[in-house]
Amino acid sequence: MSRVVKLAVIPGDGIGPEVIAEAEKVLDAATAGSGIRFEKTHFSLGAGRFLETGETLTDADLASIKSHDAIMLGAVGGIPGDVRLKDANIERGLLLKLRFELDHYVNLRPSKLYPGAPGPLANPGEVDFVVVREGTEGPYVGNGGAIRRGTAQEVANETSVNTAFGVERVVRAAFALAERRRKKLTLVHKTNVLVYAGAIWKRVVDEVAEEHPGVAVDYLHVDAATIFLVTNPGRFDVIVTDNLFGDILTDLAGAVTGGIGLAASGNINPDRAFPSMFEPVHGSAPDIAGQQKADPTAAIFSTALLLDHLGLTAEAARVTRAAEEDIAHRDGEPRTTSQIGDAIAARVQA
Amino acid sequence: MSRVVKLAVIPGDGIGPEVIAEAEKVLDAATAGSGIRFEKTHFSLGAGRFLETGETLTDADLASIKSHDAIMLGAVGGIPGDVRLKDANIERGLLLKLRFELDHYVNLRPSKLYPGAPGPLANPGEVDFVVVREGTEGPYVGNGGAIRRGTAQEVANETSVNTAFGVERVVRAAFALAERRRKKLTLVHKTNVLVYAGAIWKRVVDEVAEEHPGVAVDYLHVDAATIFLVTNPGRFDVIVTDNLFGDILTDLAGAVTGGIGLAASGNINPDRAFPSMFEPVHGSAPDIAGQQKADPTAAIFSTALLLDHLGLTAEAARVTRAAEEDIAHRDGEPRTTSQIGDAIAARVQA
Ligand SMILES: CC(C)[C@H](C(=O)O)[C@@H](O)C(=O)O
Ligand SMILES: CC(C)[C@H](C(=O)O)[C@@H](O)C(=O)O
Repeated sequence: MSRVVKLAVIPGDGIGPEVIAEAEKVLDAATAGSGIRFEKTHFSLGAGRFLETGETLTDADLASIKSHDAIMLGAVGGIPGDVRLKDANIERGLLLKLRFELDHYVNLRPSKLYPGAPGPLANPGEVDFVVVREGTEGPYVGNGGAIRRGTAQEVANETSVNTAFGVERVVRAAFALAERRRKKLTLVHKTNVLVYAGAIWKRVVDEVAEEHPGVAVDYLHVDAATIFLVTNPGRFDVIVTDNLFGDILTDLAGAVTGGIGLAASGNINPDRAFPSMFEPVHGSAPDIAGQQKADPTAAIFSTALLLDHLGLTAEAARVTRAAEEDIAHRDGEPRTTSQIGDAIAARVQA
Repeated sequence: MSRVVKLAVIPGDGIGPEVIAEAEKVLDAATAGSGIRFEKTHFSLGAGRFLETGETLTDADLASIKSHDAIMLGAVGGIPGDVRLKDANIERGLLLKLRFELDHYVNLRPSKLYPGAPGPLANPGEVDFVVVREGTEGPYVGNGGAIRRGTAQEVANETSVNTAFGVERVVRAAFALAERRRKKLTLVHKTNVLVYAGAIWKRVVDEVAEEHPGVAVDYLHVDAATIFLVTNPGRFDVIVTDNLFGDILTDLAGAVTGGIGLAASGNINPDRAFPSMFEPVHGSAPDIAGQQKADPTAAIFSTALLLDHLGLTAEAARVTRAAEEDIAHRDGEPRTTSQIGDAIAARVQA
């Protein structure tokens, strides 16, 4: 069998290029001799590109990215407070633009506490859940504005937009995932305060639940969900939630399961109308960039999600297992970014 | 000296009446023989009242409450899923209505890890911070709506409203508090995504900061803030944030500092145009109601905030110290709600 996969690689800023180099190394190791060939295109995008050219994401960039089968992204974003980036908003103009333009409505964020992984909880118990975060709606739509800006009379609004179409498709994806896992789904929202947005989420979950009698469904307010994430994270299997609550819960979940140095994510278009994008949950961490201090494991776990999405399930499983084994064997001795990548690549090939 | 304080007491639903009974006991103990007399009016409000009368908060209730000097609230809310409460929304119609009508723009939520308090973190370190949560704006304004409800074409919106007036007054209160504490203030928002709401918060904090050169100011995205709350909660002194982020952060903070059985809060109108309201952060917990299982400590700490707000600082300090000592002496033996209240009241009088 021989297959060519066109992969768009966006190393990005800060530690992005360092972790992506290791992810590519592991990807190559996992597919060596398999007949699958990754044809990679590297895109220079992020704060660095903006500072050089004033461009964030051109139409040509976007068109070219769309012609690929999948995307691997490191991290984007410049040094906080850099005045030259004051009007850039790399997050909205690049990262969120990609998620929205490529209709990544399933933002998949697994949280698993691997044996050996350090964590802040005294008694975490077994933790293994997935957050299915909506990726194209909610408070992230960019539907905001302000009047009398910069004055004492300013009013600034942000509107969260939630559609039955958008909620239903992500809720369906979450139920499908729950069916393949421990068959438990928790809706997280704030229905008692955000009554309209909350009602549409609640209604759609109730409706889709009828088609999945084998899935146990419960509901938590977002504030209560944060409590359970630190007192009983083992209670969760699949969490489905909106874009903003998902953002908050997954950073917390990452911290609880060993830090965002390990947390992977996939921005997925399940309809395959556009390429899906895989990225670590962490940011560009400019303070440690270029020093080989970053942990590439999150990027490597994201590579496993990418392989899985491409149907290369055996290769995905090998990458996941190799990274898990690496975590289990950590002894606290510091290793460079590439030493960790080398170690995981070696386990993949073993 | 003799002084009469008119206190409105809203025990509410579930465990509310049980914890309020202990808070009143401690309040009486703290002020016995001091010349301060609390003239209490008990209000029957909450899910129970709604089920009996169909009323949530009448104009007459509100007018009567307004004629008091301060309010003590237990918890409101019925049994989750109770169909008779389907259209009630006690949270919006009662709790939030009080906060909005009484212009409680400072929602003050201290988080302190007391020696002896149990907590989920393996190495919490010293934790002692206060969240100043905005209480009258943001996504809580109730500015939402939906079209084509209940259909596959539904669109449901929620608009967060943020005014320079509203942001500035709470930011000023937060800086004033930071000046009296360790002189550190952290703004939490999501400026990279909610650009308009984020910008007004950022601008106002920057402006007010100029008047407080002695206060160190930093900024965290809300997702990153949740990480620090579990990995390094000691980094915080005063957090200022919007209504929704404050809701989320304070439940998490409560969990980190021994559980919401200990977390106190004040809904404060610093201008004293209306009575301020003091309530535990926890809810009505109908599952354990009437069983003397609830911990009244959060309600008792809230009573200390009430005394402090009334200028009765010595009495407030005695209540806080008594509750702290009680926590330090807990040995894991279960006690009833009233045993805990008795023990703290006895320490107050000692
Ligand atoms: C960088 C930012 C726009 C992004 C988000 O809010 O989604 C990040 O926090 C994430 O979780 O991927
Ligand atoms: C009950 C609910 C409306 C309330 C809120 O969201 O403010 C509660 O969670 C709180 O934090 O006091």
